[in-house]
Amino acid sequence: MQTVTLINSFEVPAGREEEFLKAWHEEAEHLRHAPGFLSTRLHESLDPKAAFRFINVAEWESAQHFHKAIGSEAFQQLSRKNPFTPHPALYQVVSE
Amino acid sequence: MQTVTLINSFEVPAGREEEFLKAWHEEAEHLRHAPGFLSTRLHESLDPKAAFRFINVAEWESAQHFHKAIGSEAFQQLSRKNPFTPHPALYQVVSE
Repeated sequence: MQTVTLINSFEVPAGREEEFLKAWHEEAEHLRHAPGFLSTRLHESLDPKAAFRFINVAEWESAQHFHKAIGSEAFQQLSRKNPFTPHPALYQVVSE
Repeated sequence: MQTVTLINSFEVPAGREEEFLKAWHEEAEHLRHAPGFLSTRLHESLDPKAAFRFINVAEWESAQHFHKAIGSEAFQQLSRKNPFTPHPALYQVVSE
């Protein structure tokens, strides 16, 4: 099975990490129960001034599963509350 | 052992994927033999127009190992030949 990987990079100003983590965990908890969700791993930069303070790498069964999960009204409501700019895109692993 | 994760996002214009992959594989082959290297996984975006066409996620034993590996003259020479803009930063996993 060729899964897809969501890589979502977030711009979070230094000092607002706790606020980001609270919003992210709410969203992650929601997605974790959606059909097709496989795993997620949130990364925090060692350098507080990195362009992307947090990057999430999550695996889904397919692009369709992912799009359906984030398209739900419940998720959209959570997402609108999150003030941090995300840069999401879907990927496939081409070398490891 | 708390390892570190390098996440390196590359801007690669559509149509230059093969050129990028050649340069990336040369660098990856070099780093693979450096002390402290654990794993690497290269991701290609499903959308050819994604801001970051390729993202590499690599695990190293420590930040020191990584910095020593990329600081070598041999790696610097390879890196100067690579025309694609990288956006590297080191991360730790904070949730999974």
